Amino acid sequence: MSKGAFLVRAGRWLPILQWGRSYGRHAAVNDLVAAVIVTIMLIPQSLAYALLAGLPPEVGLYASILPLVAYAVFGTSRALAVGPVAVVSLMTAAAVGQVAAQGTADYLSAAIVLALLSGLFLIAMGLFRLGFLANFLSHPVISGFITASGLIIATSQVKHILGISGGGHTLVDLLAGLAAGISETNLPTLLIGAGALAFLFWVRSSLKPLLLRLGLNRRLADVIAKAGPVFAVAVTIALAAGLDLRQAGVAIVGEVPQGLPPFAVPLFDFELWQSLLVPAVLISIVGFVESVSVAQTLAAKRRQRINPDQELVGLGASNIASSLSGGYPVTGGFARSVVNFDAGAETPAAGVFTAVGIALATVFLTPLLFYLPKATLAATIIVAVLSLVDLGALKRTWIYSKADFAAMAATILLTLVYGIEAGIVVGVGLSVALYLFKTSRPHVAVVGQVPGTEHFRNVLRHKVITSETVATLRVDESLYFANARYLEDKVYDLVAVNPQLDHFVLMCPAVNEIDASALESLEAINHRLKDAGVTFHLSEVKGPVMDRLQRSHFLEELTGKVFLSQYDAFRTLASDLPFEAQIAAK
Amino acid sequence: MSKGAFLVRAGRWLPILQWGRSYGRHAAVNDLVAAVIVTIMLIPQSLAYALLAGLPPEVGLYASILPLVAYAVFGTSRALAVGPVAVVSLMTAAAVGQVAAQGTADYLSAAIVLALLSGLFLIAMGLFRLGFLANFLSHPVISGFITASGLIIATSQVKHILGISGGGHTLVDLLAGLAAGISETNLPTLLIGAGALAFLFWVRSSLKPLLLRLGLNRRLADVIAKAGPVFAVAVTIALAAGLDLRQAGVAIVGEVPQGLPPFAVPLFDFELWQSLLVPAVLISIVGFVESVSVAQTLAAKRRQRINPDQELVGLGASNIASSLSGGYPVTGGFARSVVNFDAGAETPAAGVFTAVGIALATVFLTPLLFYLPKATLAATIIVAVLSLVDLGALKRTWIYSKADFAAMAATILLTLVYGIEAGIVVGVGLSVALYLFKTSRPHVAVVGQVPGTEHFRNVLRHKVITSETVATLRVDESLYFANARYLEDKVYDLVAVNPQLDHFVLMCPAVNEIDASALESLEAINHRLKDAGVTFHLSEVKGPVMDRLQRSHFLEELTGKVFLSQYDAFRTLASDLPFEAQIAAK
Repeated sequence: MSKGAFLVRAGRWLPILQWGRSYGRHAAVNDLVAAVIVTIMLIPQSLAYALLAGLPPEVGLYASILPLVAYAVFGTSRALAVGPVAVVSLMTAAAVGQVAAQGTADYLSAAIVLALLSGLFLIAMGLFRLGFLANFLSHPVISGFITASGLIIATSQVKHILGISGGGHTLVDLLAGLAAGISETNLPTLLIGAGALAFLFWVRSSLKPLLLRLGLNRRLADVIAKAGPVFAVAVTIALAAGLDLRQAGVAIVGEVPQGLPPFAVPLFDFELWQSLLVPAVLISIVGFVESVSVAQTLAAKRRQRINPDQELVGLGASNIASSLSGGYPVTGGFARSVVNFDAGAETPAAGVFTAVGIALATVFLTPLLFYLPKATLAATIIVAVLSLVDLGALKRTWIYSKADFAAMAATILLTLVYGIEAGIVVGVGLSVALYLFKTSRPHVAVVGQVPGTEHFRNVLRHKVITSETVATLRVDESLYFANARYLEDKVYDLVAVNPQLDHFVLMCPAVNEIDASALESLEAINHRLKDAGVTFHLSEVKGPVMDRLQRSHFLEELTGKVFLSQYDAFRTLASDLPFEAQIAAK
Repeated sequence: MSKGAFLVRAGRWLPILQWGRSYGRHAAVNDLVAAVIVTIMLIPQSLAYALLAGLPPEVGLYASILPLVAYAVFGTSRALAVGPVAVVSLMTAAAVGQVAAQGTADYLSAAIVLALLSGLFLIAMGLFRLGFLANFLSHPVISGFITASGLIIATSQVKHILGISGGGHTLVDLLAGLAAGISETNLPTLLIGAGALAFLFWVRSSLKPLLLRLGLNRRLADVIAKAGPVFAVAVTIALAAGLDLRQAGVAIVGEVPQGLPPFAVPLFDFELWQSLLVPAVLISIVGFVESVSVAQTLAAKRRQRINPDQELVGLGASNIASSLSGGYPVTGGFARSVVNFDAGAETPAAGVFTAVGIALATVFLTPLLFYLPKATLAATIIVAVLSLVDLGALKRTWIYSKADFAAMAATILLTLVYGIEAGIVVGVGLSVALYLFKTSRPHVAVVGQVPGTEHFRNVLRHKVITSETVATLRVDESLYFANARYLEDKVYDLVAVNPQLDHFVLMCPAVNEIDASALESLEAINHRLKDAGVTFHLSEVKGPVMDRLQRSHFLEELTGKVFLSQYDAFRTLASDLPFEAQIAAK
């Protein structure tokens, strides 16, 4: 193999070989600037999401170092920023909470195993090119799921703002916990939390326009607005330390180990692996869908392409890297990837620089985090996830499609009431069931000729020429097992109400497939129409469908003909039409 | 309400009111003749299928009396003959065998409860008009399931022919049982069984032609051929009684209670009901599918119609009647219905007459059955079910469609190895999964204009006119969540390899539906093409799809236009075409 051919092949599995060879000074500068901004944004987020997952804060930092390097080597998106994200953190808490108690060593071990399983599953899916499976998560299901998760996540953080204890993974449990504990609200915590919340909402909605009005350039205004959480963190640390708020009952992060993540071998415990397998699969799929949507959106903006199957490998490698360095499941995050892209990141090297930034933070900044109030982190999470909640989508979907609305509403409801796993599983099941239901009762129309044209239209909607001896039914769906008998019923009904009928034509311009069950039904129709003295014809059968019919005995047994166009069929068969109509048809 | 209107409405739920009012002497004679023939056929069948279900022989007779009367009142088919059938008997044995030991009173109680649950489920499905759900059993799955069931049933009866003990509900278990017991084969039993088997196969294949050659009329020859099993029963009873074969180790039916079936209240035991629920659902669906296929075939021959939802009610009532009179699950049988039809049955009254015939038999004939060898009944079953086995269907399906073949082969294999419930559940799952997989990668084609026509065809298959600045992609499938991203990929690939592109047209003549996920994808395509400087158009969008698109914001945001015909689109957009091509296009 020549060196070039080798690089092309290796480049498919190691995208770094493609962009790495032409990496120059200009790209490096852009990547470095983007990395600085993303690092500033990622430090509080990593801490907060670890808290959401029920893990020690440093685990969030660990999950933001090696995974980024692994993605830079194996991923295909130039701008995707991986790390801990809200929904996956919530799913991690739900999954790990079922096998171990929060705060124990077992809990951390289970989270690490979860990352490993998720990584292995993603890589396996990538190697078997199964990225398309993620397509079975319909948009309404994903949207409903994200909205419900956002509501659950926001609710789960209210306890930290109030300074009370509580728990649960469903909205009902969480609200019950808050109701039970609200009388024990800690006032200093509430002041910190509510203050941070108000500040962060203000930063998100009003700071950037204000800075622009003050004459700052757009890029600087952006960086300052993104640094809002860092500012909130710094100020509340100062307050908590200066006023010694710990004595007043404000929960703080406490000791965060200083230094780079340890190399960790995930625990091998067959029972543990078994009980985490299903959650790992769900986390992988949800994470992949979120990540690949972001990556595709950003790639398209620069007319680049990503490869979904290779993305599976990239995310899988990131999760394995996370697991081996004491982290928990990660994926490509929406907000940080957009920031990375907007800040000018050109290649995955920006991710490597970000990893270095986070690593420096774990070495030098962790002592400063001792007095960080948990309420501040909770406020960061609430502001971030509430932007995911999109209840307007419910209304838009209702207007567009009732079936899609049903899937979305069921997903939201089930996720809120029974938790995220139930919500997503039922949502997918319902999407598939509704689709099958719709295609099982396809639209059929009796058609006639539009006078003076070769076109045929629904007799109920248009004034058309029809014949007493020829009936034509157009079916607007592929014929397969779920609608084969429905079609039979429609044909028999039509023949039963038209006693003068000599010819029946099935018009198939929208039939993309006829499976073995539908073939059986066509044979039955042919047979029964023959018994009833009616000849059975087909018209406008597509090439691939015709190819397949020719492999069966159906065409030999067909009492009538297969016409290339419906016009041919009607002109040939409708001998009862008056002369003028025949003329009009020409 | 007028009397007429009342009768029409009541007649929907009680079909007997429709045909009963005009019932006359001529129909009665025809029905009576058919009933005699079916009764003769049904007596040995009822005994045999009860044996197959692991129940006492009289239970088979009980299941052939009241259920027929109930179906005559509620059913819509004029010729369907209900009662115990092979596949449902096998499923009953498998279901009941999991909760009680064969031969115990609990076993019988469970079978009676199973009939009740099945009846309630069928009626509920009928009232909610859920008959269409049976359509999700694709033809290859049903065919594979019936073939595998036939093989299992035939194998399960071999032990009676050999006179050995054995058991099991899968082919593997059954073969293992036979292998273990074959050394204890009872020679007199084998002689009776093999003799009956040879005789019945001869009757089935050769008797009728022989009788016709001997000059008998067709109807009489038919009746004599159908009476073959009765003859075998009579002869082997005489042999067993005369030679006292019981002493020689031949298993006989023994005491059969004389008299009409007892009224039985099914046992209410919550745990029992719960454990029988899933089998009851599967039995109901399989029984309904078998029954409705037969009923439709026979109705069509006389240009009559059946109502599938009312059929559910009819079969449900039959099963409840069976349960209340000590019987087990019943459904419409293929062979006996065809016999009933061929013998001239005109109305469901034939079923009532058959019920009277079977009732007379339970009163007067049961003492004669004492010496009936079980090997004779086993031979009856084997001959009947081997006609269900259709391995040729595997080959035919392979030629027509690999996906259907996969579903059929999997159903056969799983039914043989893991039993009937696993087989049918996996078969349905696989059918749905394969259908979704196919529609998730729809056929798409880049098309160009056929010179001198308004038609557009695949550029790979035809010599067509194309433009450098206009690309048209035709998609041959409804757009929904499972294929929305696939479409995006295809579009982006196409745009990426055509740098001169100004216009992209998506041609939608076969798109019957665009769901919310696909709408999202179209919006994404519109957005990304806009970023890339390409205008996005649609052509040949169907009416209902267009109606729905108008309820969204998509058409406002669309950078291009929606063209009624692809010809309009091409003529308007392809400004780069040479003058001759433009002419050719007119």
